[in-house]
Amino acid sequence: MEGLTLGEIALKLGLTLNGNPSDRVTHVATLKSAQPGALTFLANSKYRDDLSSTRATVVVCREADVAQCPTAALIAQDPYVAYAQIATWLHPKRATSGGVHPSAVVDPTAIVPVSATIAAQAYIGPRVVVGERVSVGVGSALVSDIHLGDDTQIGPKVSIYPHVNVGARCLIHGGAVLGADGFGMAMNQGQWLKVPQVGGVRLGNDVEVGANTTIDRGAIEDTIIEDDVHLDNQIQVGHNVRIGAHTAIAGCVGISGSTHIGQYCMIAGFVGIAGHLKIADRTVILGFSLVSHSIDEAGVYSSGIPVEEAKTWRRTVGRLRQLDELNKKVKRLVKLQDGEE
Amino acid sequence: MEGLTLGEIALKLGLTLNGNPSDRVTHVATLKSAQPGALTFLANSKYRDDLSSTRATVVVCREADVAQCPTAALIAQDPYVAYAQIATWLHPKRATSGGVHPSAVVDPTAIVPVSATIAAQAYIGPRVVVGERVSVGVGSALVSDIHLGDDTQIGPKVSIYPHVNVGARCLIHGGAVLGADGFGMAMNQGQWLKVPQVGGVRLGNDVEVGANTTIDRGAIEDTIIEDDVHLDNQIQVGHNVRIGAHTAIAGCVGISGSTHIGQYCMIAGFVGIAGHLKIADRTVILGFSLVSHSIDEAGVYSSGIPVEEAKTWRRTVGRLRQLDELNKKVKRLVKLQDGEE
Amino acid sequence: MEGLTLGEIALKLGLTLNGNPSDRVTHVATLKSAQPGALTFLANSKYRDDLSSTRATVVVCREADVAQCPTAALIAQDPYVAYAQIATWLHPKRATSGGVHPSAVVDPTAIVPVSATIAAQAYIGPRVVVGERVSVGVGSALVSDIHLGDDTQIGPKVSIYPHVNVGARCLIHGGAVLGADGFGMAMNQGQWLKVPQVGGVRLGNDVEVGANTTIDRGAIEDTIIEDDVHLDNQIQVGHNVRIGAHTAIAGCVGISGSTHIGQYCMIAGFVGIAGHLKIADRTVILGFSLVSHSIDEAGVYSSGIPVEEAKTWRRTVGRLRQLDELNKKVKRLVKLQDGEE
Repeated sequence: MEGLTLGEIALKLGLTLNGNPSDRVTHVATLKSAQPGALTFLANSKYRDDLSSTRATVVVCREADVAQCPTAALIAQDPYVAYAQIATWLHPKRATSGGVHPSAVVDPTAIVPVSATIAAQAYIGPRVVVGERVSVGVGSALVSDIHLGDDTQIGPKVSIYPHVNVGARCLIHGGAVLGADGFGMAMNQGQWLKVPQVGGVRLGNDVEVGANTTIDRGAIEDTIIEDDVHLDNQIQVGHNVRIGAHTAIAGCVGISGSTHIGQYCMIAGFVGIAGHLKIADRTVILGFSLVSHSIDEAGVYSSGIPVEEAKTWRRTVGRLRQLDELNKKVKRLVKLQDGEE
Repeated sequence: MEGLTLGEIALKLGLTLNGNPSDRVTHVATLKSAQPGALTFLANSKYRDDLSSTRATVVVCREADVAQCPTAALIAQDPYVAYAQIATWLHPKRATSGGVHPSAVVDPTAIVPVSATIAAQAYIGPRVVVGERVSVGVGSALVSDIHLGDDTQIGPKVSIYPHVNVGARCLIHGGAVLGADGFGMAMNQGQWLKVPQVGGVRLGNDVEVGANTTIDRGAIEDTIIEDDVHLDNQIQVGHNVRIGAHTAIAGCVGISGSTHIGQYCMIAGFVGIAGHLKIADRTVILGFSLVSHSIDEAGVYSSGIPVEEAKTWRRTVGRLRQLDELNKKVKRLVKLQDGEE
Repeated sequence: MEGLTLGEIALKLGLTLNGNPSDRVTHVATLKSAQPGALTFLANSKYRDDLSSTRATVVVCREADVAQCPTAALIAQDPYVAYAQIATWLHPKRATSGGVHPSAVVDPTAIVPVSATIAAQAYIGPRVVVGERVSVGVGSALVSDIHLGDDTQIGPKVSIYPHVNVGARCLIHGGAVLGADGFGMAMNQGQWLKVPQVGGVRLGNDVEVGANTTIDRGAIEDTIIEDDVHLDNQIQVGHNVRIGAHTAIAGCVGISGSTHIGQYCMIAGFVGIAGHLKIADRTVILGFSLVSHSIDEAGVYSSGIPVEEAKTWRRTVGRLRQLDELNKKVKRLVKLQDGEE
């Protein structure tokens, strides 16, 4: 790899360079482990202690951190954004070669352009339409009646059911399942009766779906994931959910059926969201929280309780269970007090 | 599609029709988006506002809602059950054709009837016995020594380990893993010693297993899922769990080893259940709850706390940690008060 | 199966035998269902009631339980450890035969020794190096540039991305995904910018990874799972996490990026751990807990609240929300009281 000179980087991103513009970096590294030739960055203050001893060729950092920086610095308002852009140049995705691996199975009614890459043991079923430069990973199954937009990348062992529509430049990681039946049934004379799930799934452009994440097909209409939504691993998205553009959701979140999440929301890991709710645009939900009612106003919401020593916590839970009684005692005391005054 | 006349539907289900029996519906739709030719329903009162403006040909609803219904109405005591039955007629599952795809691998010792459909790249291993009209999805792996009952359907990329027994009319969605080892090991001189997991898994009839759900094999005896159990996506079922008939469990639930759940239970999403417990028949557990002790009596149980503004919640958590102290203060006050009286 | 005599077992493990050394057992069973010929054990006191009626040939138990044991007894300090060892002898893993199934695809640049077993439809990609006696399950995808240590076993439908290094004697269960992208992106002018994930994943020796568990590749450096770590099913391990040797983690746990967990920790099911934390060696975290700050000292930690009747719980949550107010009331009362005294 030839890398980039610091001058080139500064120019491309309009950053101020504190250092020699002809110095060259070939790869990214952490502050702590960087060696000469590496570009690194300081964005999270938790890592500031590592700055003074870094051996990197250059650090992307804020103006305020330049004084402590022992090496060249590229000054950015948002060092993480600048780092992301530079890292993409230094570590470009391997271009896929195009072509269908001989062990892949492509149905004669599927449309696969020459620019697309279909990996070993992938399956492209009836009436699947694959966009330009798409890549489908090893052993992924596109069952039938699916559309993948241009430049979309599908990881290994992904399952896509019929009537799923994926936009352009999407990234679907390994083991994800798009379009399995929603969880719908009605109790009828002591036996569950399955409700047919006849909707599909629609993903906008630039959507990322994490490994082993599942997005169910709609019961009647489609489940919809709008543009630039990012879903981490092991997320469950129920039928007829709608997730607004630019929303990011961390791992292990579960979203029950028919809930609509707004745009630019940020939902941390391990959040459970009940069904048939509406979450306002730009809502932030902190980790390990339960959302059981709609959220009408943007804001930061939470219901998680951080761990403490189990012995102390057990006592607290015991007290919690007596809270109603405690409340009554205090009421009585207040009343008596008021009577005295 | 030819569809059904309202008269035919009323007759088949014994419903009262308020409208023209020769009108015809061809598909289902939501109240909001329905066009002429569509059948829709009103079951959840959250959607009652959409009733008056629906353009559907007919609405399945309760007697009480007929007055507000601008179109024909099929009157049902349980509109959701009636809808489920009609939707199954209007949107029948595509009949599978039978036959083994040339890219599938079927071991010579496996038994696969002509009526079964084995999709592309599926694997039917040694001594696997497949029932009549079974379908196995693209790229699913039935490793060995497995039995699938008649009319069972397996989605894409499902893994079934040896010694798993699946009943008739089951539906296993994509990415599910049945029969992986339970989590059993003993600490021995500073190193974990694996405990062999020699049991299997048994699923009754009419069981549904959601996408990417995992059901571990038993440590000694089998893990058992009884008839008509419905499991949503991303559920983890530990070794030697037993789930009673007709129980329904929503997404992201985890059930630890050797716990026995009764019949007709309903467990909402994101519930964690500890090991070696017994849960009574017809128990309902609300979402985001922890079950760490057995439940002996049917009832509705919960321990989830809904989100509020993070700032307020942080203060509440702070107060919660001081609850023991608060309790002591009140005790002292009550004592003083009693002394005074 | 020929089985073992009680004398052989006692000798091999140095246990005291209370019974006839020439009696023979061929398999393991539970106390309750054991028949003659079976070996069983009593370790968890919850099952003590089953001891007196067992029909097993021998019970592995503690000295204190011998008096109640109606059959032969093998006396062990830790009956579960002794049981695990005996069960491994009575139920040995089927030896794999070695060889590559004709439907598997092995890239010409991959190295696969004759002792390795590559199952049907598995994929061994470019520059993958497979150790001696390794087995790769049906339909697993080793994409490229991967190393598997000797005697490692990979289940069905496992996905391993490039630059993942797996040690010796590891056990990776079905549907696990190792090395998918970490969840990293930066908000740039209203659009998410993906941060390239250029690190890999390293697993030590004797690591177990549960079904459908996901371990993300590092953002810059590797995600590291040290020796003898055991991960149950459906766990999410974020990028740049490090898990110390001999730590065991139960199902449905989520660990956010860059968190370092110590050695010999035990983390129960459904625990959520935030990012960039440090958890001390030998920390125990009980189920359904949130860890949002570092834990500096070994101990037992918890924040889970067990269910109670929903009606009662709803009242408690209401009171909880008024806790700050209650606190103020008590403060006022204490003040008044102090004034009086």
